[in-house]
Amino acid sequence: MKLYSYFRSSAAYRVRIALNLKGLPYEYVPVHLLRDGGEQLKPAYRQINADGIVPTLIDDEQHAIQQSLAIIEYLDETHPEPPLLPKLPVDRAHVRALALQVACEIHPLNNLRVLKYLKHTLRVDGAAKDAWYRHWIESGFETLERRLANDPRTGKLCYGDTPTLADLCLVPQVFNANRFDIETSCYATIQRIYDYASQLDAFARAAPGVQPDAE
Amino acid sequence: MKLYSYFRSSAAYRVRIALNLKGLPYEYVPVHLLRDGGEQLKPAYRQINADGIVPTLIDDEQHAIQQSLAIIEYLDETHPEPPLLPKLPVDRAHVRALALQVACEIHPLNNLRVLKYLKHTLRVDGAAKDAWYRHWIESGFETLERRLANDPRTGKLCYGDTPTLADLCLVPQVFNANRFDIETSCYATIQRIYDYASQLDAFARAAPGVQPDAE
Repeated sequence: MKLYSYFRSSAAYRVRIALNLKGLPYEYVPVHLLRDGGEQLKPAYRQINADGIVPTLIDDEQHAIQQSLAIIEYLDETHPEPPLLPKLPVDRAHVRALALQVACEIHPLNNLRVLKYLKHTLRVDGAAKDAWYRHWIESGFETLERRLANDPRTGKLCYGDTPTLADLCLVPQVFNANRFDIETSCYATIQRIYDYASQLDAFARAAPGVQPDAE
Repeated sequence: MKLYSYFRSSAAYRVRIALNLKGLPYEYVPVHLLRDGGEQLKPAYRQINADGIVPTLIDDEQHAIQQSLAIIEYLDETHPEPPLLPKLPVDRAHVRALALQVACEIHPLNNLRVLKYLKHTLRVDGAAKDAWYRHWIESGFETLERRLANDPRTGKLCYGDTPTLADLCLVPQVFNANRFDIETSCYATIQRIYDYASQLDAFARAAPGVQPDAE
């Protein structure tokens, strides 16, 4: 398998954790999101991913799979062990909802292309751009914290004590928040889960700082 | 079952189509997103949905399920007929990626709360707000059109001739674009799929204009 990735992309980070948890070796193909106006927007990469976003997974049959959550569900269906979703439909929905809360309510607003639009098109200054970033992280983490803190299914991780799709989304989002100097220790459950998860081997090996293209 | 919904919410619209396709009757509970600063943000609704967003599905065992894509996957797992995802993992990934392209790359940027932030916090004027809305629809639809037009799996609908999760996301997004006077006929495949799908009974009965809270 081959993963088109950028070390700092949190969507790629989610997939790297999944591949590590499943024990699947893969070739890492770096796509530099900032160099030359973005390698992801060049025709060469657009042929692989029309949207010009990372990650893209190329599986052993040469299928190009896009969108991190679709890739992770695909890996979970084709390589079921260890499972990244619980068994019961109602618990699967709970885990998917936690993951989507990060993937639909927080992350899309703080994407590189959105920050670029704020800066170059709306001419928003640096302070207002930082406030925007902070706003979506904080409002998203507040509700996520409440949900995790109040749910009896929360364990050492988002759902019990073994990693699920929800942890794969949460950990990169906390990493990103910290990178932008946003304090996350006030979200006690989120911070506890992050601290525990990021020590696990599959998570540690997926961290941005240890990728081949890390700067 | 019970669905907390707002007639114009495109996330709720997705779930209404799913419930109709599955032939599942449900009680429609309106949550007015604009009245009184938003009923979704009041404590009464926050107890059901901590995020303060619609939709929420209450199933027959009184579980509250959140996030439209998690709800639809849940309905598909608990009421498998007719299926909303293909059989083969690689095709399931394709359909999920199309759905996520709408749900993660377009819709979150044009949410009510984001438009409110642009207006009230960033003090963006009406024309710039409209340009923002148009930008994310157009850039998203351009790549979606290319992907649908070039994939042999595209039929009368996003994947073959029967509705999948991808159509459930695409149709409300096109409806929204048109409501904001964005011309979609230039996206020939998207427009063709929209025209065909919106005639189908399950889609027609889910349309905003025929909901109990329509204005």
